[in-house]
Amino acid sequence: MKIGIVGLGLIGGSIGLALRDPRREVVGYDAYPEAAELALKRFCVDQVQSLEEVCQADVIFVAVPPSVCVSLLAKIAQLRGPDTVVTDCTSVKAEVAAWAKHAKAEWFVPGHPMAGHEKGTAAFASAWMFRGATWLLTPTRRTKTSATKVVSGLIEEMGAKPARLDAEAHDAHVALTSHLPHVVASALAAMSDGDAAMRTAGPSWRDMTRVAESDPELWTQISLGNRAALAETLGRLEGKLAEFREELLRDVPDAAVLRGFFESGRLAKVKTTMDKEPQ
Amino acid sequence: MKIGIVGLGLIGGSIGLALRDPRREVVGYDAYPEAAELALKRFCVDQVQSLEEVCQADVIFVAVPPSVCVSLLAKIAQLRGPDTVVTDCTSVKAEVAAWAKHAKAEWFVPGHPMAGHEKGTAAFASAWMFRGATWLLTPTRRTKTSATKVVSGLIEEMGAKPARLDAEAHDAHVALTSHLPHVVASALAAMSDGDAAMRTAGPSWRDMTRVAESDPELWTQISLGNRAALAETLGRLEGKLAEFREELLRDVPDAAVLRGFFESGRLAKVKTTMDKEPQ
Repeated sequence: MKIGIVGLGLIGGSIGLALRDPRREVVGYDAYPEAAELALKRFCVDQVQSLEEVCQADVIFVAVPPSVCVSLLAKIAQLRGPDTVVTDCTSVKAEVAAWAKHAKAEWFVPGHPMAGHEKGTAAFASAWMFRGATWLLTPTRRTKTSATKVVSGLIEEMGAKPARLDAEAHDAHVALTSHLPHVVASALAAMSDGDAAMRTAGPSWRDMTRVAESDPELWTQISLGNRAALAETLGRLEGKLAEFREELLRDVPDAAVLRGFFESGRLAKVKTTMDKEPQ
Repeated sequence: MKIGIVGLGLIGGSIGLALRDPRREVVGYDAYPEAAELALKRFCVDQVQSLEEVCQADVIFVAVPPSVCVSLLAKIAQLRGPDTVVTDCTSVKAEVAAWAKHAKAEWFVPGHPMAGHEKGTAAFASAWMFRGATWLLTPTRRTKTSATKVVSGLIEEMGAKPARLDAEAHDAHVALTSHLPHVVASALAAMSDGDAAMRTAGPSWRDMTRVAESDPELWTQISLGNRAALAETLGRLEGKLAEFREELLRDVPDAAVLRGFFESGRLAKVKTTMDKEPQ
């Protein structure tokens, strides 16, 4: 089996490392020769090839920035081998799914691994990146079942759990669980006013601002790609924070209201954590 | 040397474990016998004693909820040995510092370890809790230098770095670096609407909501103790989120504005991380 990876950054590089196996060939392409060079040096791929050659693989993982994903998929549609299955990794699925429907790309399985971190490039790629992670797939009605099956199999080999949902639900959900946290982390980090306050920063500050180090260009594209859903969750969060603040500013704040706020957060968090326990 | 710990929860228990040493005796007291029992079982203290006996220690760490701290300090002021040094661990220092000035407690060093996590009780106490953490001290003008020195020495033994600042600056800084993150984590966690969305939660959601599991009663007390400063940081955060949301909702959002938002967060985060590197 030949695996092709288009886009050799943190995610593409990690897919390469996670799928390395003597039984198969992993080849990669990146528009930036230095990125391809780095991925090769770090053993993320067995070989760097041209886009044309990579498109002859049995399965292609496309791991490129959202802004170029659809135009690249259109190119791959022209170049791919007759049985090549293709999947992508972008964080917003509406645009990609619309393209797939329009292009009648039954060989294409839109995907989104819920993994990654704030350090970019293949320099930080890891074979363990996807272990235990959920890997969302949003096949369209046109996507061939066999294509979804092949991609799911490789995802499981990487240690991740494939989960199917439709593109619209996907975008609404990740607006809350991924895009909103990134915006909040950036807003918080930007509030760090000077060294004096930062001397007092402990583990909660560190964790809450971790992803603020992510690539600004990538997150601009993601935010624009999921505008309406992201704006909706932002509005809801602002409302919750304002309610808490207004209670604090009352002449005599009601401790029960504040406690109720923390309790509902705690209950929801404990429930989520329990749901995630291994069965 | 005899160390006394009043309040044998997560923090008190961890202090006991961190200071265990054949050269000294670590004794503890907790108003709840089950809490004291648990701390003893987990080797957090060598002995459980009455408050009167614990007050004969050379140094006493008070690690109790904010709502009872001052009344307990007043009691300890009556019971303490003639040379006993006392320090506390509450997250808000204004009330404690005011009491110390009023009581002319020159033997008292207000303190606040920037450590801990969302799992409470001595069951989760750890000798490593304070390694590498900053431990803030806000001595009043009355606090004896020798008392601050003794407490600082023990803090360093636990692997933490003592740092001095005044109580007012402390409360303003931790409103941003600790209290705000806790409120935001709770608000986010409470938004987790059902299992469908939570299937898509990855590492950024997990980290951003980690501290939502903290004790609601404790965080209600902390929020009430630092009302004005916390409300101010909440208002600033709401403003930043609203700006981002309004840009998203424009007919044609300006990508440069969104990028600028993420960039300022990234720059601030990278700077903080670099400042924290070991010298």
